[in-house]
Amino acid sequence: MTVIGLGPMGVALAEAFLAQGHPTTVWNRTPKKGDGLVAKGARRVDTISEAVSASKFVVVCLKDYDAMYAVLDPADEALSGRVLVNHSSGIPEQARNAAIWAAHKGVDYLDGAIMVPPQAVGHPDSVFLYSGPQSLFEAHEKTLLSMGGTRYLGTDPSLAVLYNTALLSLMYSSLQGFLHAAALVGSANVRVTTFAEIAIGWFLPSVVNPYLLMEAPDIDKGNYPGDRGNMVMNMTALDHIFHTSKEQGISSDLPEQLKKLAENAISAGYGDRNFMAVIELLKNPSKES
Amino acid sequence: MTVIGLGPMGVALAEAFLAQGHPTTVWNRTPKKGDGLVAKGARRVDTISEAVSASKFVVVCLKDYDAMYAVLDPADEALSGRVLVNHSSGIPEQARNAAIWAAHKGVDYLDGAIMVPPQAVGHPDSVFLYSGPQSLFEAHEKTLLSMGGTRYLGTDPSLAVLYNTALLSLMYSSLQGFLHAAALVGSANVRVTTFAEIAIGWFLPSVVNPYLLMEAPDIDKGNYPGDRGNMVMNMTALDHIFHTSKEQGISSDLPEQLKKLAENAISAGYGDRNFMAVIELLKNPSKES
Repeated sequence: MTVIGLGPMGVALAEAFLAQGHPTTVWNRTPKKGDGLVAKGARRVDTISEAVSASKFVVVCLKDYDAMYAVLDPADEALSGRVLVNHSSGIPEQARNAAIWAAHKGVDYLDGAIMVPPQAVGHPDSVFLYSGPQSLFEAHEKTLLSMGGTRYLGTDPSLAVLYNTALLSLMYSSLQGFLHAAALVGSANVRVTTFAEIAIGWFLPSVVNPYLLMEAPDIDKGNYPGDRGNMVMNMTALDHIFHTSKEQGISSDLPEQLKKLAENAISAGYGDRNFMAVIELLKNPSKES
Repeated sequence: MTVIGLGPMGVALAEAFLAQGHPTTVWNRTPKKGDGLVAKGARRVDTISEAVSASKFVVVCLKDYDAMYAVLDPADEALSGRVLVNHSSGIPEQARNAAIWAAHKGVDYLDGAIMVPPQAVGHPDSVFLYSGPQSLFEAHEKTLLSMGGTRYLGTDPSLAVLYNTALLSLMYSSLQGFLHAAALVGSANVRVTTFAEIAIGWFLPSVVNPYLLMEAPDIDKGNYPGDRGNMVMNMTALDHIFHTSKEQGISSDLPEQLKKLAENAISAGYGDRNFMAVIELLKNPSKES
């Protein structure tokens, strides 16, 4: 295996290969970053051509796609016939362009996204997302498993970065939602740890997440039945959350934004549907009033 | 037991008492709503005084606090010496006023909040939140358990409605966060059910929620170490989410609002801390720029 780019994540990937007994070649612009890996048995090379030539299977873990092009450019002919797995982050268009670039170079290309911190690399319950040719993924799944659990998303090479972006978005909005709720009970001197036990230890896994999983097939069908609660009722609840936030002296920005979303959904004719109908506005912002 | 107010939730509460073999008296402004309960063995009475006099333990499940006062007013002297559990929803101030009102009437008062839909009432894994005198909660916990799992929050009577509001806020923000992320991958024709499996089946329970639980004690201490990622890095990620949302043609409202939050946190001097520091702005909106 060859690992190119030895930031904390690249180092973790190389360590995972070494731990599984794979001969591992490493390269970094600043060679010093590989000292620890050399001590663990990695072979460090000076040029990118040597790094690429050393292995059939080359993993790139750099800042972004431009960095990947800049670093791999001098390897040029050595690239042909390699399997290249790119864990750099970027936008969907960049991933699609990288697949075209790889095809021109005769490289078998998989685009990847790592959804866990470096310390979780190598554990089977960590998840690495991949997109690109299915046969390529299947042929190398065993090698990919050395880095962590794998998940194949589809042939469109942009799927890994798109999922990555969506999951990060979900993460930040989850953090904001939790912190706002914690601030709300905090206004009555409830500790965050106390609230977390109920909110995360029970409410999210037992109420909210099963509800989302249950509704997903209906969302796919554009079906938002309002018989067990509709957007007009949600609006009353959101109004209540907004006013309570104000009265407790905490920020009302999040409930205000949620209210606006429900208001727009009602204006767009979804007043008698359930809250999931807001996805229609999120998917197509021009529908917003 | 007496149950006052026979909307879907009141009916479910009375059914739960009956199912546990408790003699149960019911009252509703429109008596017809109690037909099904009478068939199951409930005793229906015509006046609120009869309803209150019938049992030591009285559960109120009405629209709001004002409805509770209006309904209970004619019972007046019958109220003295009863245990009153109020599951009506409202704001913290209303719950505190209700406790004062109850004290004047000689009523032992617990304020409650039901966090599950009617169909989950009576199951031990559903959760009912209570606040008020601890000795009162403990003396009647067995009876309270007939309705569902219980959780005592503290003596401040407003804690149940405040937790209720905070958990609802968390729910709506979780729904929004999930739906925005689903819209993002949906722009590449990924189905919501497919995304839910990774996002809810794995990412939230395995990555996000353990992170929040781990950070909670530090949040309580106002400790936001930035050594494994800081607000300036979060800002780059949020900017990336914002631009990808725009490029994929979906709404950018949520990432824009998250960006604003991180920007304000950086302006307030939290650029080198982790994302959890935004709670300082949420708790104290005047700190925002």
